[in-house]
Amino acid sequence: MAKGLGVTSRDENYAEWYNDLVKKADLADNSVVRGCMVIKPHGYAIWENMRDALDGMFKATGHVNAYFPLLIPKSFLSKEAEHVDGFAKECAIVTHHRLMNDPNGTGVVVDPSAKLEEELIIRPTSETIIWHSYKNWIQSYRDLPLLINQWANVMRWELRPRLFLRTAEFLWQEGHTAHATFDEAEVEARTILNVYKTFCEDFMAVPVVDGVKSEGEKFPGAEHTYTIEAMTQDYRAIQAGTSHHLGQNFAKAFDVTFTNAEGKLEHVYATSWGVSTRLVGALIMVHSDDNGLVCPPRLAPIQVVIVPIGRGEDREAVLKAADKLGDEIKALSYGDRPIRVKIDDREKESPGFKFNHWEMRGVNLRIELGPRDLAEGKAVLAQRHIGEKETVDLGGLALKIPGLLAQQHSDLLARAKAMREAQTRRVDTWDEFKALCEKDGGVGFIVAHWDGTQETEDAINEATKCTIRCIPLEALDPGDLEPGVCVYSGKPSSRRVIFARAY
Amino acid sequence: MAKGLGVTSRDENYAEWYNDLVKKADLADNSVVRGCMVIKPHGYAIWENMRDALDGMFKATGHVNAYFPLLIPKSFLSKEAEHVDGFAKECAIVTHHRLMNDPNGTGVVVDPSAKLEEELIIRPTSETIIWHSYKNWIQSYRDLPLLINQWANVMRWELRPRLFLRTAEFLWQEGHTAHATFDEAEVEARTILNVYKTFCEDFMAVPVVDGVKSEGEKFPGAEHTYTIEAMTQDYRAIQAGTSHHLGQNFAKAFDVTFTNAEGKLEHVYATSWGVSTRLVGALIMVHSDDNGLVCPPRLAPIQVVIVPIGRGEDREAVLKAADKLGDEIKALSYGDRPIRVKIDDREKESPGFKFNHWEMRGVNLRIELGPRDLAEGKAVLAQRHIGEKETVDLGGLALKIPGLLAQQHSDLLARAKAMREAQTRRVDTWDEFKALCEKDGGVGFIVAHWDGTQETEDAINEATKCTIRCIPLEALDPGDLEPGVCVYSGKPSSRRVIFARAY
Repeated sequence: MAKGLGVTSRDENYAEWYNDLVKKADLADNSVVRGCMVIKPHGYAIWENMRDALDGMFKATGHVNAYFPLLIPKSFLSKEAEHVDGFAKECAIVTHHRLMNDPNGTGVVVDPSAKLEEELIIRPTSETIIWHSYKNWIQSYRDLPLLINQWANVMRWELRPRLFLRTAEFLWQEGHTAHATFDEAEVEARTILNVYKTFCEDFMAVPVVDGVKSEGEKFPGAEHTYTIEAMTQDYRAIQAGTSHHLGQNFAKAFDVTFTNAEGKLEHVYATSWGVSTRLVGALIMVHSDDNGLVCPPRLAPIQVVIVPIGRGEDREAVLKAADKLGDEIKALSYGDRPIRVKIDDREKESPGFKFNHWEMRGVNLRIELGPRDLAEGKAVLAQRHIGEKETVDLGGLALKIPGLLAQQHSDLLARAKAMREAQTRRVDTWDEFKALCEKDGGVGFIVAHWDGTQETEDAINEATKCTIRCIPLEALDPGDLEPGVCVYSGKPSSRRVIFARAY
Repeated sequence: MAKGLGVTSRDENYAEWYNDLVKKADLADNSVVRGCMVIKPHGYAIWENMRDALDGMFKATGHVNAYFPLLIPKSFLSKEAEHVDGFAKECAIVTHHRLMNDPNGTGVVVDPSAKLEEELIIRPTSETIIWHSYKNWIQSYRDLPLLINQWANVMRWELRPRLFLRTAEFLWQEGHTAHATFDEAEVEARTILNVYKTFCEDFMAVPVVDGVKSEGEKFPGAEHTYTIEAMTQDYRAIQAGTSHHLGQNFAKAFDVTFTNAEGKLEHVYATSWGVSTRLVGALIMVHSDDNGLVCPPRLAPIQVVIVPIGRGEDREAVLKAADKLGDEIKALSYGDRPIRVKIDDREKESPGFKFNHWEMRGVNLRIELGPRDLAEGKAVLAQRHIGEKETVDLGGLALKIPGLLAQQHSDLLARAKAMREAQTRRVDTWDEFKALCEKDGGVGFIVAHWDGTQETEDAINEATKCTIRCIPLEALDPGDLEPGVCVYSGKPSSRRVIFARAY
């Protein structure tokens, strides 16, 4: 069946499966502009649902939205020393501001007289331009904390782009907060990490490990970076969101000071944090199958599709029943929002075509209404995530839908957790570590001791393509916090960390 | 008082008043990047309310959202002949994709080896890149209509930027629809024009004239352009939104055809339409006064502020009463959303400071709660739009709030309508026209006969700086539809049109 739908199976080629699915499920398309994607309506609707949920959680924790310029003066990127090394390289650079008609023929060319004095960079992230503004906004401790978020597009010139997972342009939110003390900034960074973790579990049905990044993997310019890491069905890690405690680094680079309650001048403490359209990629990678998208119900653009089956004289009765059922379901809520129902009454498409069409697009529940079933007061109910269908009573069916969606969410979360647990291994010798990385199939999470040095991290990465995903905040197992010896160097290690190959 | 607040009065200097207000009301700030602005949280909250309302209206009329790339290949801008003339000139051009460390010292420079083969333009509008995608999405009449909207940032290198009204980068929505017939596209363009008009009147309390643009003022590449035009307090026109019937022009430029129901290949018909953060500028210009922002209540970030007044032993009782009242009001709705209430319990600021602070920011209703009033079961209620305050009974006050907000909306709309009517004049001679344009103060709307030629339009513009704002869809006065002679050329004219100086 997968073949017929034009989707490569996961076993055959996981990377191709992913690409096929993104396109066949109408989520996104490659663009003519290298590395950029077109997010199609069905994919964008998932992102909108993500955005609305996250935005509500940010506002509930005291944040407000604002908007800062797309373009950043080149010189700003040099101001924070670590930041320039980490970000300033692959980016889109605006050098001119005018086109003119080509003097040699048709079309347009760049007007050489319209060269900018200083080049402008399309933001790869906005710390620099935002802290430049904050300098004017912050004078006293009474102006703090400043808890601002922005929903925006950003651009990083990616050499190996992949739809949603890594694109040159992507959509995201970036929070940028300013605080009077280190401790307050620390609380903020952890609060947001919790928001992200809660969102992943409660909306995406994706279990995540929250932890701290190693020095080698932290954000350029941060004191430390918190991360949440999920596992995909090819047993790789995918970073789903990061929250950075920036200390006073950006405040010092942009000279942002405030008068504290004791009248003393101090540099401001900062955090920044973000999640992006990459989450859509993570969602696909964690739940979907060879028949297409499997979407956690709270984020699904359509949660229930009703397919009326019947031609000729039966059609009218079946359509009427479908409308009635649709209205009943729409009047109900799941996750504090009205249930999203679609009635597929297209005349020219067969029921089989419609079943495949909506399966591919991840609609959670399908209700088939045929004349024979209808006469008996029955309908057929298909559940996307388990691929099973059963005949059910039409009476009272609507009222069961919220519970079925809730169950589907729990099932998806449990399934993803079980997969992660099965693919998480404690490894104590370098031979074992290497052997795991050489076998067919994914590596999973390797929970191992590490001596805490950059050299060891680099050497392990060189040998196995694994990186340290995080030092978990809560031990996956109590024993993980006991001291031991580094799996690579044999030097002392205070606790285990998670290694994996990552997207 | 205006002086004390640092806002120039409208009479003194309208342009300075506007700029002062935008900054003092915390709506937006100039950015270090030429022509770009920072939209501050209070200004962004107005835009968010606009966006949510419009987005709901678009979805209710069958539209879905998507997202297309920020960057457009330069060659695309040459494909539609009129479009290139109208748009391709002042824009931001990306020529390189990498920075490198400056070999001569610190900082970064553009890496000359990372020059793009073809330059990329930051979208000034997205017709070209979207129609390039539509070519792949549309094959048959069954794929039509395609009703897609995008919320995005766009960039036009403005020579005389003004906060919100005209900025190099701005936020907007752009709808791009595809249809099987001319008539369907026409219905779409008019449907959206109505959505815009309804939005302006029902949410912004801004009356608008809807009409068609003259050939000289239409969108580059359109068959015809519909517009809505409002009047500011300095009696200028401000274009609040446009809806374009594009005919088959973009479909032909990008070769987008479909098989119609009869099996014949045809080019697709198109519309595009947009409103932008400029609406925030229009909102300010229509309603605000010398004390700051006056915000129509459905778009106000904060609709009610409660200021508890009382020190020492009184403070606790007053705060408790404020909280209770706040909770009562928050439980109520206006315009289908819970009422947005703020309790300003800052200890270090005086009541007078707080009154000015929230007046400047356009909070619709202020409730002052002092110990003496409280003892008598009273409170002071101040209405921002009329600048009046009165003592009212505390009992039942909450329940009056929705009605007061609704009344405020009606008052604002009526006031703006009355101003527009007073400043709309029918003019029949060129001397009269010129005299109007030479007197002090604004010109208003001049309703006059025009011979329909570009030459006359240009000549009038040259002499008076007035442009034809629109040919109204509904005559402001039945006599406007009667034939006459052109106010400039004396040639025959079929009906009157609206001239004005415009933002």
